[in-house]
Amino acid sequence: MFQSFAVTARPEQGPPRLDALRAELEAEGLDGFLVPRADAHQGEYVAAHDERLAWLTGFTGSAGFCAALRAVAGVFVDGRYRTQVKAQVAPCYTPVPWPDVSLGAWLREHLPEGGVVGFDPWLHSVGQMEALAESLAGSGIEMRAVANLVDRIWEDQPEPPMEPANVHPLEFAGERHDDKRARLGAELVDAGQVAAAITLPDSLCWLLNIRGADIPRNPIAQGFAVLHADGRVELFMADAKLEGLRDHLGPDVTVHAPQDFIAALGALDGPVRVDKQTVPMIVAEALADPVYSTDPCALPKARKNAAEIEGSAAAHLRDGASVVELLAWLDAQAPDSLTETQVVTKLEGLRRSDNALQDISFETIAGTGPHGAIMHYRVTEETDAPLQDGQLIVIDSGGQYLDGTTDITRTIAIGAPPPEACDAFTRVLQGMIAMSRLRWPEGLAGRDIEAVGRMPLWLAGQDFDHGLGHGVGAYLSVHEGPQRLSRISTVPLEPGMILSNEPGYYREGAFGIRIENLVVCRRADPLPGGDNHRDMLDWRTLTFVPVDRRLVVPELLTRAERDWLNAYHAEVAEKIGPRLSEPAKTWLDAATAPI
Amino acid sequence: MFQSFAVTARPEQGPPRLDALRAELEAEGLDGFLVPRADAHQGEYVAAHDERLAWLTGFTGSAGFCAALRAVAGVFVDGRYRTQVKAQVAPCYTPVPWPDVSLGAWLREHLPEGGVVGFDPWLHSVGQMEALAESLAGSGIEMRAVANLVDRIWEDQPEPPMEPANVHPLEFAGERHDDKRARLGAELVDAGQVAAAITLPDSLCWLLNIRGADIPRNPIAQGFAVLHADGRVELFMADAKLEGLRDHLGPDVTVHAPQDFIAALGALDGPVRVDKQTVPMIVAEALADPVYSTDPCALPKARKNAAEIEGSAAAHLRDGASVVELLAWLDAQAPDSLTETQVVTKLEGLRRSDNALQDISFETIAGTGPHGAIMHYRVTEETDAPLQDGQLIVIDSGGQYLDGTTDITRTIAIGAPPPEACDAFTRVLQGMIAMSRLRWPEGLAGRDIEAVGRMPLWLAGQDFDHGLGHGVGAYLSVHEGPQRLSRISTVPLEPGMILSNEPGYYREGAFGIRIENLVVCRRADPLPGGDNHRDMLDWRTLTFVPVDRRLVVPELLTRAERDWLNAYHAEVAEKIGPRLSEPAKTWLDAATAPI
Repeated sequence: MFQSFAVTARPEQGPPRLDALRAELEAEGLDGFLVPRADAHQGEYVAAHDERLAWLTGFTGSAGFCAALRAVAGVFVDGRYRTQVKAQVAPCYTPVPWPDVSLGAWLREHLPEGGVVGFDPWLHSVGQMEALAESLAGSGIEMRAVANLVDRIWEDQPEPPMEPANVHPLEFAGERHDDKRARLGAELVDAGQVAAAITLPDSLCWLLNIRGADIPRNPIAQGFAVLHADGRVELFMADAKLEGLRDHLGPDVTVHAPQDFIAALGALDGPVRVDKQTVPMIVAEALADPVYSTDPCALPKARKNAAEIEGSAAAHLRDGASVVELLAWLDAQAPDSLTETQVVTKLEGLRRSDNALQDISFETIAGTGPHGAIMHYRVTEETDAPLQDGQLIVIDSGGQYLDGTTDITRTIAIGAPPPEACDAFTRVLQGMIAMSRLRWPEGLAGRDIEAVGRMPLWLAGQDFDHGLGHGVGAYLSVHEGPQRLSRISTVPLEPGMILSNEPGYYREGAFGIRIENLVVCRRADPLPGGDNHRDMLDWRTLTFVPVDRRLVVPELLTRAERDWLNAYHAEVAEKIGPRLSEPAKTWLDAATAPI
Repeated sequence: MFQSFAVTARPEQGPPRLDALRAELEAEGLDGFLVPRADAHQGEYVAAHDERLAWLTGFTGSAGFCAALRAVAGVFVDGRYRTQVKAQVAPCYTPVPWPDVSLGAWLREHLPEGGVVGFDPWLHSVGQMEALAESLAGSGIEMRAVANLVDRIWEDQPEPPMEPANVHPLEFAGERHDDKRARLGAELVDAGQVAAAITLPDSLCWLLNIRGADIPRNPIAQGFAVLHADGRVELFMADAKLEGLRDHLGPDVTVHAPQDFIAALGALDGPVRVDKQTVPMIVAEALADPVYSTDPCALPKARKNAAEIEGSAAAHLRDGASVVELLAWLDAQAPDSLTETQVVTKLEGLRRSDNALQDISFETIAGTGPHGAIMHYRVTEETDAPLQDGQLIVIDSGGQYLDGTTDITRTIAIGAPPPEACDAFTRVLQGMIAMSRLRWPEGLAGRDIEAVGRMPLWLAGQDFDHGLGHGVGAYLSVHEGPQRLSRISTVPLEPGMILSNEPGYYREGAFGIRIENLVVCRRADPLPGGDNHRDMLDWRTLTFVPVDRRLVVPELLTRAERDWLNAYHAEVAEKIGPRLSEPAKTWLDAATAPI
């Protein structure tokens, strides 16, 4: 499905829907109801069935929630969405700057002692509700688990997704699912746990070597699972999704109806591991002895094996060729002759012309001029802008391939951008190069090394308001935990972890810059003269697409930085060149010439 | 008191003392007794009265403890002291590699269920004992608070220190003690606490603007205090120390005998703040309602005011002149004509020739050749080594002045060191320069920026096993918390905090390198083109002493690094030159010439 540029918000639909919800509040004797953007699996994307927040309020951002009380309805959104929410919701909704204003504090302000707020216990995690309970302590406000009130009033609510799942071949997965189950089961034994309840679809897809199509841009099949300490799995997924997969799953993976999940949890005897931050309240409460720890799949999934790493490398070459074709085409167009949507559509067409593409991995961000400064810009028919002389365009996109997931950002000059943009671009590039070149002692986390990628901007009094990088899945989520290159991440980096390296710079109302490669962590080769007794890690770069040399100020680069860039470009030419059309190959030769 | 090079360990005294201690165990019905290196104030230095660990075992390191059981006596020391402990203790003591082997695990191995281990509740903090209790859970081993058994058998134990305290003049302290008391008292009110129990002498000296001489190298007066929420202080300190200070202390600071401290705590009605990591067990247990938080003096003390910062800057110029005199003298000596102790004594003499010196701030580390690779090397008559051609000598030293505390390390070439040492020296220097030049967004901690000072070594496959920097007091402790430049520090850096910036490199058996300046954190001036909305911090350098240019490999430096070094050296020449003897001034001019 090609990316759509439709304007999806319909503010005028909000008021009657809010009225209907308030009638339900009245009928249930509730003073409010929470409508999160989340589904039961706490993923970044949700199915149409779960777009309750957008349906109710009109707000279509990827994070946020509504607290609908009888007299006021707050729509809580973070810094990225403060402008967007105002355009998308009717005046009956009150935007609330979150997390500056916490839900607890807001409820205390708007509800009397004894107020009762309903919530759907499938859609809120234990961690969330515990934090809320703490901030409501002493207020007399009660949170009450109830059936979802939006589902009751949403007459044409789409059905839950029911797309067929597929086998993820061993060639790409690199490890049989019985080996994964046995390995993780043994960890449960060591931890004294009889089972783990798995509620994240990417975890269960990874564990069972299956993929699906329940969610746009994200090849997952929705469901739940119980992993037993002996390696058996009870899979709670609609039968219809699993036709033809029974042989693959084998006798130790039994299939059950999703609606039987809660009863099965109640039958578990002994400590059962769940992840507090993602497990729905109703799941934890069904367990006699829940043990809060991490999802047992999280780290093993993050540590990619050799097949996954080589698959990702291959996917990146294929994907890189499509992006280079786009850049060559883009350079051949005159300023003012194209708009953002044309760039998006052209790029998606190039990716899809390679039959290996399963889907794009997220909605392409293509922001020119001031739009580039909106970090999560999604172009619509209304905002579509021409690419003008002197602008930068930020193009952040990716593809889902059977052998890997890609995510790449390049910032391209349209005509001749101003010197201050080139200076900032060069500093962003210096940060990207510094992280790419880094080697560091084993045991450090993203927090411990992120400064390296920001330092060139810091020295100029500049910075950017997102993390330097996020984890990426193997034909799975383009944002995958637990590893991150971020000041909030204390998870040690380990060999096999794939992350993005994407410093940026954003000047509101003027321009945006971001340069993003994916890199995979590996054991560093020893260096002559280095400390033999230290285990160090470094990065192998996966993304091979040129950086726009016209935006680089060579005098700002050190010799080591220049050497890195020239060596990178030589590798781009060597790896991607043979995959290109003649015009693109000619373009690439010039774009990768040494500086 | 000039630094002594005496060999203080007497291994042969250990066995009879252990026998005597075991007789006490027998008499008390105990299976063991803990002998830490700590005193009741958990400081880095202890008075002779409190050197129980060294008296019992012979081990003189600055950290460690003995667990003396009836059949085995473990001496727990960290990585710095694994070689030293073997030379210092008799075979009746068993060195234990700590923290690899935890005390809890070791006790479980050596004691049966029902074993009882005594400890002195003045010498162990709540945090320590809680962690120990956790690791002993289920073992049936009991920890029992008892009177100190070592004090009972140590016949010629020195008396507790009883040196007179002095007023720390307002000119240097920068804030009246009544203002400090009122300010901190108001914080207790905000936190709903009636008082705070203060057990750290540097906290109470800072709070009351007094200094003392109870501990070598550390101008503190030992005692305890209760800070009430109304700003009053009850000071528990021997009367003899406080002669002449009554006027300074005023009516709102009442003086009581130290032995009345515990009873006074019992009389406090309401929540009382204590610092879990440093408060002795006996103090916390005396409180009806202890609230675990940080020492209320810790952060205010760390954030130096203008008088303290300018005082420190002045002290550093004075101290820098002494160090430059040493370096000029050192360069005039032929290789093999000097030994380490001569360097130490010469340096201390130069510092003392300035009447402002109160004391050195710690025992000077002067390690030549392989001794330089021992991070905490303390030269003795036995280890004293000649400075040989081709060696590096690491000289780490500091002074205590009324207006500030200094700590500086320089690594100096003796003759012509090998190229690999010069390469490593240059990388250490690059790390020091990178941290010196850094500016960063407010809110980050040492952990978030430390990598910047290590990256040049990491890129060469090298690293060092200590933090990049520690906090430093204002005529107080040379190691002062809570701020650190270290991967274990998550305390945000704030304007006024003084820290060391001291990367190093150590090749065992060959050479050591360390370069250390003190720096003070400040609000960074805005830069043209920088982000106006960001509050950023940077460093002001306090230490002005040349870096040995003969060890710098200029081709390894970037232009920015070279510019920094040349600018720094120009500032050294300008600030220190006028304070020098003629020969030293001539030497300095050459030592600070641009490269």
